[in-house]
Order: sequence, then C-alpha cells, then structure tokens
Amino acid sequence: MAEIDKVRGLLTGLPRPVGWAERRARIEQVAAVDAPPPEIAFTSTTIAGIPAEWSTAPMADARRVLLYLHGGGYCSGSIVSHRGLVSRAGQAAGMRALALQFRLAPEHPFPAALDDARAAYEALLAEGIAPVDIAVGGDSAGGGLTLALMVSLRDAGRPLPGCGWLVSPWIDLAMTGATMDSKDAVDPLIHRGYLEELAAAYRGAASADHPLVSPLRAELGGLPPILVQVGSAETLLDDAVRIAGRLGAAEVPVRLEVWPQMIHAWMLWAGRLAEGRQSLASAGAFLRARGLVAAG
Amino acid sequence: MAEIDKVRGLLTGLPRPVGWAERRARIEQVAAVDAPPPEIAFTSTTIAGIPAEWSTAPMADARRVLLYLHGGGYCSGSIVSHRGLVSRAGQAAGMRALALQFRLAPEHPFPAALDDARAAYEALLAEGIAPVDIAVGGDSAGGGLTLALMVSLRDAGRPLPGCGWLVSPWIDLAMTGATMDSKDAVDPLIHRGYLEELAAAYRGAASADHPLVSPLRAELGGLPPILVQVGSAETLLDDAVRIAGRLGAAEVPVRLEVWPQMIHAWMLWAGRLAEGRQSLASAGAFLRARGLVAAG
Repeated sequence: MAEIDKVRGLLTGLPRPVGWAERRARIEQVAAVDAPPPEIAFTSTTIAGIPAEWSTAPMADARRVLLYLHGGGYCSGSIVSHRGLVSRAGQAAGMRALALQFRLAPEHPFPAALDDARAAYEALLAEGIAPVDIAVGGDSAGGGLTLALMVSLRDAGRPLPGCGWLVSPWIDLAMTGATMDSKDAVDPLIHRGYLEELAAAYRGAASADHPLVSPLRAELGGLPPILVQVGSAETLLDDAVRIAGRLGAAEVPVRLEVWPQMIHAWMLWAGRLAEGRQSLASAGAFLRARGLVAAG
Repeated sequence: MAEIDKVRGLLTGLPRPVGWAERRARIEQVAAVDAPPPEIAFTSTTIAGIPAEWSTAPMADARRVLLYLHGGGYCSGSIVSHRGLVSRAGQAAGMRALALQFRLAPEHPFPAALDDARAAYEALLAEGIAPVDIAVGGDSAGGGLTLALMVSLRDAGRPLPGCGWLVSPWIDLAMTGATMDSKDAVDPLIHRGYLEELAAAYRGAASADHPLVSPLRAELGGLPPILVQVGSAETLLDDAVRIAGRLGAAEVPVRLEVWPQMIHAWMLWAGRLAEGRQSLASAGAFLRARGLVAAG
C-alpha cells in the first residue's frame, strides 16, 4: 500500500467530529502522530504576550527565523499539532522556527489572528531580527494568514519579510475555485460545507471578499518572493493556482509546485511520507535562498 | 537602465515587420544578438531527414539529450535564432542539446511541425537513447509543441521522455486567457492580432480547440514532470498559469515559475540579462533531476 494511502486510512477511519471541541481534539490527534526528529530542541515562550514555541535544529542559523502560522481553518490547530511540520521546516530551511499560538475563532474572529501574527512579527523586529532574515509561512488557513500578514505590513509601510511560504493555502473564503467541486471526491479532509462553517466563524462581521480575509482579492504588488505548494488531491488546488497567477501578474517572484496525489497539508505526515520530506526539502531550499536561484 | 529595459529597447526600436519573410528575418535579427558561450561545440546534422543542430558543452553527459523545439509562432524561428538559448540550456542541464528545424507554417500547417517533432524523438530512441534520458523543451509555440508531442506520444502508447520544459508557452490558440488583454500594454512582442494571424496559419483546417493544436484542451494525465517558466510582462502569462493548473489537476508533477518584469522568451537574451541566466540555471537543475527534488 502506498504511503499516502496509509495516511488516508489514518484520516478516514475515524468518526466525523461534531462541534468545535471535537474538531480541535481531532486535529491534535491526527496531525501529531509523528514525533519530530529527536535532534530538534523545543522551547516554550511568549512573544508579544502570545504563546509560542521555538524549535531549533543543530545547524540552524540563529539570526534567521521562520515565523509559522498553523492551519486548522482559523478555528483549530496549535503549536502542538503542527510541531512536526514546523520543526522539520525550520530544519530544512536552516533557521530557527517560531510557531505562534494565535487566537482562534469563533471565540476570536477576524482580525484577531492577523493582529497576533502582526504583533509577533513586530516583536521579532524589536528583538533585532532583520526583516530580510524572517520568512513567514503557513498551511491552509495559516497560508491565507501569511499572505494577509504580508499585505497588511505592506499597506502599513512596514518592512517586509524576506520571503513567504504557502502550503495548501486557503485564500478564497468565498470558495469560488473550480476544484472545490472537481476534487471533492478525492479530498479526504476539506469540503465546501466545512469551509463555509469555518469562514462564517472566522470572518465575523467582515465580508468574505475583504482582502485581508480572502487575500485572493488583495492587491499583491510589492510582496517578497513566495513559494506555493499544493497537492493534486485537494479541493483547494485552485486556491493555490489562482494565487500564484495573481502574485505573478503583480510582479511578485512566485513558484508554484503541485505534488501529485498529495492531500491537504500533507507535510504534517512527513514522518511517514517521502513526498512530505521532499516537499519540505524543496521549501527549505527556497526559504534558505529567499526565493532566489543561483546567479548564472 | 535596467538590463530588461535595454532588451526592450532592442525590440521596440525597429519598424514593425510586414509579411512572413520580414517576420522571419526579424526573429533571426533580434534573437541571435548574443553569441553562445565559446566553450560550446556545434554540429549540423539531420535527424529523420530533418535539419537539426547538436550543441555540446564540455561537461555534458552524452547519454542524455535535450530535444528543443524553438518558438516563433510555428511560422518563424530556427535553429540559428535560438542557438544561444538552446545551447545555454543544454549546458545548464548538463546534457547534449538537439535543436530541431521542424517545418513551418503557413507553407506546412498542422500537423507538420508535430510530425517532425515526433519523428525526431523516435529517431533518438532508435539511436539507443533511453526515453527517460530525453528531456523535451521549447519556448512560445515550441512550448505548445512540446506539450502536444508528449500528449501524442502518450496517446500512441509510446515511451515518454523523462521530463518537459515550457518557456512562455502558447498553449491556447483561441487566446482566451485574461492576460491577453490585461498585459497587452506591457508586452513588447505578443499581441492578440498577431497571434490570430499565426493561429490561422498554423492550424489550417484544424480547430483552435483541437487538443494537439491547443494542448490546454488536451487530457494531460500520465505526462512526466514539467517545468513552466513565464515572465510577468507577458500576454501569455495566463497560458502558463492555466496549463500549470491543468497539469497539476491531472496529477502531473508540475512547477511554475513567474519571473517579474521578464518578457516573452526572455532567455533568448541570457547573454545580457541576469534573469535569463538565473532562469536557465533553475531549468537546468530541474532537467538534470528530471523534476525530482532530493529525497529528505
């Protein structure tokens, strides 16, 4: 049996969670099945008063930071559920990783998560980290939040991070992508009805078309290089393709990778999935080089 | 003045060519301004009776071949106009490059060019080159032809090349991409009216929706890994984004790179354009690894 099918079995063999508490418990259960590599050290912290966790691999460059915003639809997920993904990403990128426990909806709707991400970024600058030495990344809702953070920083005239990284990003809370339907049967995790609940809980009084809620609607010019990675078996495939196209049209250096047969945020299972490790290696090289390739 | 603006000056300072003969002379004039690197050796040949040219850089792996299909709207361009691009690409990929002088429209409409590409590919196999050791690439119409070649090989049950490479590909001869209009003012080379002339000349009696004329309409499943590179200042930007999305949805491993401010087939001017050399370096790494990244 292929590795990805075993991961699918892990996800689909469980009863459907009902309500926010069960959903939050479920992501903790399924996303944290793989222990992080033993050589990575973890330190709990707070930054700007927000709970967070540093992870540091042996060869990490202490001057450089990956600020990571976890997925979970803005309503679930944590620095624990995503510990393996974040720490492996930092290791692949050769930098320290800071996972942020931003506030979740529905208790804390938009713009709470964005405010927390912004505050954490500013605190890193205040600690003396150079903006160009910060990479910002996230999966799913965390990918949308990563993009919203960069847009809001640009709008405020603040220094931008060196690059961005979006994994299976959810950047259209109106769910207008064609793959929302065409990939529905093959996606084991993400479906329109679930996303509609999440979108309603997160956006609160804001429109789904608000550019910081759905960065697909934002002006994107002036952002640093961005890597977008997505699986082919995702209802959110078109979110990734469309944002890559819009970023490129706005003259942002952008690279899109589509990974065959991979499912939503497959890097969560990098411990048991070669494509998870390969895609993290590719992301690591991009983040390390800030999106630049070697000059010819 | 930025390098790309100097290249723009080279292109826009000339009177508009009228008719096929003038157009053919123009592409020879503007695409061949940079001499290939002096260390690359060139050999004229024929393959399957079709004129062609080998280029070999000192460290090239003789077992591996980049079969290259030049741009020029299926109606112009040659193994001479694209000599710099092709030879530099082979050098970056560490393999021999074979540039093919396929027949041009309007004298030889569809499927003449495809027949020639197919014949050259089969001749390489007959010479004992392993399919997986062949990469197929092309720019503009040559990118569309590259994709049509792979689709037609798959449909015929023939062995597929190891990977594909599309630079500023023209894959929709109905010109339905949004950037056909939104990028019209910034693209110095490619405009709807010109493409309509080229499309009419090339497709002959075939429909613009024929999947081998406009591979955007083809079933794409089963193709090998493909790299798509495009500039942000191109009316054909959406052709690149859309084909990347369609390839990904069909479970083809695909990488899309959008290069800010670059113009159509900018690698033709790699001798005077750092981004030309950088994008060739990126393509070379992809071709060398057949689209795979290092295992984690």
